[in-house]
Order: sequence, then structure tokens, then C-alpha cells
Amino acid sequence: MLFLNEGEIIRNAASDKLRRLRRDALDILSKAVEAVDPKKAVQRMLKIEGKFLKTADIELDLERFNRIFVVGGGKAGVPMAEAVEAILGDRISDGALNVLEGAETGSSLTKIRLIGASHPIPGESGVRGVGQMMSLLTKTRKDDLVIVLISGGGSSLMTYPAGDVSLSDVQFLTDQLLRRGATINELNAVRKHLSVVKGGLMAKLASPASVLSLILSDVVDDPLDTIASGPTAPDQTTFDDAIEVLKKYCFWGNASEAVLRRLGKGLRGEIEETPKTGDPIFKRVYNVVVGSNLTAARAALRRAEALGYNSMLLSTSMEGEAREIGIILAGLAKEVRAREYPVEPPAALILGGETTVTVGGDGVGGRNQELALSASTKLEGMDSIIASLATDGIDGPTDAAGAIVDGSTMNKARSMGLEVSRFLDNNDSNQFFSRLGDALITGPTGTNVNDIMLILVVD
Amino acid sequence: MLFLNEGEIIRNAASDKLRRLRRDALDILSKAVEAVDPKKAVQRMLKIEGKFLKTADIELDLERFNRIFVVGGGKAGVPMAEAVEAILGDRISDGALNVLEGAETGSSLTKIRLIGASHPIPGESGVRGVGQMMSLLTKTRKDDLVIVLISGGGSSLMTYPAGDVSLSDVQFLTDQLLRRGATINELNAVRKHLSVVKGGLMAKLASPASVLSLILSDVVDDPLDTIASGPTAPDQTTFDDAIEVLKKYCFWGNASEAVLRRLGKGLRGEIEETPKTGDPIFKRVYNVVVGSNLTAARAALRRAEALGYNSMLLSTSMEGEAREIGIILAGLAKEVRAREYPVEPPAALILGGETTVTVGGDGVGGRNQELALSASTKLEGMDSIIASLATDGIDGPTDAAGAIVDGSTMNKARSMGLEVSRFLDNNDSNQFFSRLGDALITGPTGTNVNDIMLILVVD
Repeated sequence: MLFLNEGEIIRNAASDKLRRLRRDALDILSKAVEAVDPKKAVQRMLKIEGKFLKTADIELDLERFNRIFVVGGGKAGVPMAEAVEAILGDRISDGALNVLEGAETGSSLTKIRLIGASHPIPGESGVRGVGQMMSLLTKTRKDDLVIVLISGGGSSLMTYPAGDVSLSDVQFLTDQLLRRGATINELNAVRKHLSVVKGGLMAKLASPASVLSLILSDVVDDPLDTIASGPTAPDQTTFDDAIEVLKKYCFWGNASEAVLRRLGKGLRGEIEETPKTGDPIFKRVYNVVVGSNLTAARAALRRAEALGYNSMLLSTSMEGEAREIGIILAGLAKEVRAREYPVEPPAALILGGETTVTVGGDGVGGRNQELALSASTKLEGMDSIIASLATDGIDGPTDAAGAIVDGSTMNKARSMGLEVSRFLDNNDSNQFFSRLGDALITGPTGTNVNDIMLILVVD
Repeated sequence: MLFLNEGEIIRNAASDKLRRLRRDALDILSKAVEAVDPKKAVQRMLKIEGKFLKTADIELDLERFNRIFVVGGGKAGVPMAEAVEAILGDRISDGALNVLEGAETGSSLTKIRLIGASHPIPGESGVRGVGQMMSLLTKTRKDDLVIVLISGGGSSLMTYPAGDVSLSDVQFLTDQLLRRGATINELNAVRKHLSVVKGGLMAKLASPASVLSLILSDVVDDPLDTIASGPTAPDQTTFDDAIEVLKKYCFWGNASEAVLRRLGKGLRGEIEETPKTGDPIFKRVYNVVVGSNLTAARAALRRAEALGYNSMLLSTSMEGEAREIGIILAGLAKEVRAREYPVEPPAALILGGETTVTVGGDGVGGRNQELALSASTKLEGMDSIIASLATDGIDGPTDAAGAIVDGSTMNKARSMGLEVSRFLDNNDSNQFFSRLGDALITGPTGTNVNDIMLILVVD
């Protein structure tokens, strides 16, 4: 059972119809999260058939390989590694994997060493872990296979500054660029050129071995060069770009000597660029997304269809201000009800992505709860529910994973003396849903493929 | 030809594929606007068959009626009246209709008198026009039919304050409530209780005659009690609500004596309430939406299907911040391209509604142009177009009706030295699209059913 407060949420329903909708919603969302369980996702994607190691699109002849190494890092590292050991067992020669501090103990792994690393601020133990990976990778030969396990948080967990650049240089620079409003792509352009593994450099270190990268995507649209800063993907940015970013955010004068020296050398061609699309090393690199928002959304779609809903997956790229998206989702629900577009009731519309909250108030909330709260204001009286769920179980700095609202939410809030607009204005969605008992509580799920939003509408 | 700059927009295409997409987009959008031409919309909905006057759902036996009167008001009044005269001709006994100042001359109408009234600030000539309608309506009998023509702007054009309340009282109060952040529903609760025709009172005046109200909807979701303040629809608000609104916005002490006196009398039951759902007068009132956003969106859908696109109408309730909706539409386009959801390319997704712009900059733009500009930032390199169009031809205080963007827009802007983010930050979308030549120019179309947004994606 994914939802710890499932009974309460269902009991909270104001009518039989809404009770059925709530139960179905929790059922559908559970299937979505289950589909991206890291261990199951790897086991579903990776199989041995005869002498072949297979994924959906790739077949690797295991007899070609002398040794198999496993490296990588991310918050889902342990279960992904357990799946790989369960599949390949003693064929694995050695492995080193950076995982969240505390997660390195208690696993059943025998071949792959786990190194606990700090997150989100990178630390020294993470650097040592990457050091262990490097010593494995530098001794690989053409008849070796390197399996790289990548999941959310991998960028921090696998921080290893290049050359003279120090860990505190990278920390300071990351912090400053984020404060000055740099985008994730701008930040990555800089970080990739100050790292030994990001921006395709891990694939380069592994060369001439073959590389199979198994990726659990925590970035909307699954851009391989962005997830964990793309250790095995062609980099699209250059030293020149990195310098432009520092200049744009007026940081060129404030970066450390070591950073400036490295970027300057890169610009003059004294340090090799990160590998680009078309680089021959990528001929033997296979990047495979084992789980993503699409995986979860499709599982939700299948379950909704099985439950008898006219079901549609609309998008896995929803981004933008949470409260705006909430209004739009309520608009979609109203459209189904009033005009039977895009499908007729009973209808299930499934969306994925990750919204943001521009914080103006001092309340406690999360993007999924704020989205749901906003949606509730336009849903009054309808036999419809909207639920929004963080697949990692953590919606902002709250103990909830999201929230569920329906056509009776406004009325219930009024009867409890809660003014929805006040909670919304104060970004206090968690306080609101805790009072109502309609926060979705899962605890950490051990996976992360962003958020799933669900709309159910019946006649 | 709806688009005055059609040739330029098509020539602006960066490739053959995009040229075809642009041509198809203009074609599809043209059909959408054509479908809500007020004259055609009335003629499509209203027909005489034998002795019956018919709409899609209603059949009125013309032999039952002794006289037919035509009243009402709105920006689309003239063509709607022309359609009604073309259908009913000499069966019409008399009529009075408030239209935009200047539009009252030059029509071919012979039975229905046109009165030019000021808009958006209501004026004395509009009051006189409503007076003419009242003198028609007060003499109706049970065997009469009153046809009411309602379209956007009707609320201002048909202002006639009740009792001692003056025109300037209503003007001042409307202005103050809007400045203080009252919603349209709150404002209407007040206005309906200070008027002789709003809030169902026109239907009451017409009683015991039958009433056929033909409505061109300029409000998202077609709420009959909101369009032109609902002259022939049951009112859901009360004198009590009106007073609460004034109190909420701290206006109770500042309203004029006449306003306070009237609302107070209403509260004490000394003035009759506006007619509510279930009031017997509505047994003989037929409200028919002849054209709405849905009409336009469906026409776009049919044309897109005919052009060979896998087509889907997603919503006619899109509301929210224009730049956020733009991002969401681009996300839908990316989803079609990358994962073939909700349909596979060649795909046409159609949406309707009306967005808003929170103005932070001092540029010149409109909601449709800002939506398109924002969408362009996420569309780069794709064989996809996004277009957003105000069906009235007027997008904010600009001479454009909207804009069209595609996967080459960002690149073209760069080559012209235009920085998209700067135009977006400054709400300067019209300046941007004027430079690019991708503003959609139609001039006033004479109709208004909010906005239509179109996404086309090919492989």
C-alpha cells in the first residue's frame, strides 16, 4: 500500500461517487509509482537471454566481454545495484557506487561497493567514491563492459573537481550562480567543465570499454546530458559557454584562481573539451532510460483503462507555476463534464512533469499540494477529483507527497472555517491539507521521476 | 481572407515543412472565426420549417404568436439583427437594439431600430435605447414572442440604472470595485441589483410573452447569468450578496445615497428580488447559445481533420497567465513529437479560452502574442507551430489579433539581434512580432468568442 493514510482519504469522501473516485485515484497513482520502483524498473528493462544481455533496443553479446564493472551514483543507487547483481551476479568483477549517506549499509550487495556521499551539498566522501570509480575505469580494456547506474541526485553525489579546482570552489560557485538566477543548463555548462566525470567524461574514462548506462530520469523530458549532469552523454556545451555564463552573472571576477585558470586553459585548447555528439567514444556507449515520468504515466494510463475510464495521457512535460497548472487541470475537468472533450465521462486524464512555486507567503507547502489547492477553487460541485503526487514521496519541505481534491473540497473547507484563498496566498497548502486530511502521505518512495497529476470525472 | 498579412506570414517560413504548417494554421484559424460570424451563426441556428421557428433543441409554433419583438444589445448586434430580419422579415412587429456608437447607421434593417450607445463606459444614449426596449416589453401579451439578441459588451451597452440610482453612481461604483480587485461575479451581483434589465429582469419585463434569447458568448464556459450580465437568465445572486460585496471591498460607506437606499430596501424585501431558478417566468424563456468558443474550436477541429491531421480538441476553458499557458502548449507539442501523446504526428491540438497578462513591463502587447512569444522559447528546432488568436481580431491595445511561432522563431529572432527574454520580460510581444512579421493581422472581425490556440506538429 503506497498511501499510508489511504483509509482516511477514502473515508473523507462526501458522497459514494466521490468515494469511488478517490479509491480509484489512489489505485491509479499507486500503479504509477510502482512502475518506477528502481529495482523493478531495472529488472523489467535488463534481461539475460542465452548469451545476450538485452534491453528493449540493445543486445550485448556477453561472451564478448572479459569483465563487467558497475559504477555510478544517485539516490536510487542501492535498489538499481541490487537489480543488476540479481541479474549478472558473479559475472560482475568489481563495482563502486555513490549513494546517499546512510544507504551504504544494510544492502545485500556482494560485488558492488557502496560509498555514502553527502547531498545536496557535495562532500569529501563522495569525492573519494568517484576516485574509486576512476581507478576502476582507467584500467578497463576493449573487452570490458562498464555498467553505469544513474539516478536523481547523481550530480551532487558524484562531484569530483578537475585539476586544481577545490570542492569548496565548486560549492561556492554553484551556490552563487543559483542565487543569481542561472538556469540549470547554464549551471551545468560550468560544472561539466570543472569535473572529471560530468558532461560525458565518465564515458570517456571508461573507453575503450563498452558502456551501458541505466538511467532513472528525474528531469522532465529525460535530457540525457542533464540527468546527473550527463556522465555518459555527449555534452553540448563548451569551455566558451562556461566562461560566458560566469560573465553573464558577473561572476568572472569572483571565481577562484583555480577555476579561472582551468577555464582559461580550456578556452585556449590546453585542456581537452568534453566529448561531443559524433565523438567515436560514443559508438560503444548505450544510454538506456529504465524509468521516467513516461513510465509512470503509462502505468497510470493502463490502470485507469482497466478500471473502465475513458483514459488519455496528455503530457509528461508539464512545467510552470503550480497554481496556474491547477487552474488549467480544473478547466480540463470542466471541459470533460460540460462538453465531453477530449473524452467523455467516466474520464481519466493523466499528466506528468514538475511544476514550480514562486513563494510569496511564509506558509508550509509543496508544488503538488499548491497545484491541488488551486484546482479545488474551480472544481466546486463537480463529481471530479484532481490529485497531484511527487513520485519521490516528498512534496516540498513537508511530510506529504501531494494532495487530492474534489468537488466537495471547497465546501468542506468552508464548513471548517478555512478560507482557501488565504492558504493559497500564503503558500500554506500543507497546513490546509493536513487540516482537511486530504494530503497524500507515502513517506520517501525510493524513486523519483517527477510528478504525476490525475483528473477523474464522472457523470 | 481573414488574415490581411497571410502572404507575408507564409513567406516568413524557414522551410517547406514550416511553410505548409503556417498555411494550414491560417486556414484552420480562418474556419474557426468564420464559424462564429454572428450573422452566419444566427442563420445556422435559427430556421423556419413550416409553421415552426426552430433551433437545435427548440420548436416554437409561429402561429401561436401574434407579434414578434426584437430587443437586446451587444457588439455583434447589427449582424445578428440582420440575420433575424432575413429569417423573420415582416413577421417582426417592432424592435430596438443597442449597438456600438457608429454601428447604428448603414445597416439594411427595416424593422429593428438601432441605437448607438457608448462602450465600455455606459452613457445616456444607451439608457435611452433601453428605455425604448422597456416600452416595447411592458406592452407584450402572452401571445407575443420577444427575441433577445445578446453578445459581448451588452452589459455596458444596456446599462439602465434602477430607481433613483444614477448613471454616474453605477460608473463610479463599477470603477471602484474593479480597482479594489472585485471579481466579475462580485461586480455583477452588485450591478444586477441596480439595473432594470440585468439578472433576468429583461425576461421578467417581457413576461407573459415567450422569450427566445440568442446569445453569442464572449465569456469562457458560456455562463448565461454572466454574459451581458444575464438579462434573460435566472440570477444566482441576491441583494444580500450585493451588500456583502460592497462591505468586503470597504465601499459600503462610499456608495451614493441612492445606491444604499435601493440595496437596503431590497434587503428588507421592499423591492422584489431578481428572478431565480425555478421562477415560473422562465418556463417560457429559451436561452440559446448561437456561437461560442466551442463553436469556433469545433470548426477548427473539423478543418484540421480534413487537412489530414490527427486532431484533438483539448479544452475550451483555458484560463490563466498567458506566458504559463504558452509554456504548457509548447510542452504538449514536444510530447506529441517525442512520445506521440496524446496523438501521433501529423497532429493538430486545438484549445480555447482566454488568458490574462500580469503586466510588469511597459511594452506593447496582448495576451495571445505574449502566449505565442513564451511558447516560442520552448519550441526551438521543432517542425511545429503554435498560434494564438483573439477571435475579435483585437489582442490587447495592438493592431494584431495574435501571433504565430514555430521551431525557427528563436533562431530568426537571434539573427535579427532580438532577445526574446527581454521582449517577454517587458510585455513587449507586439513589438517583437511586428519586427518578425509574424503578428496575425485581421482587423476587427465583428465577432467575439474569446481566443483560439492551435498546435500543429509534424514528423
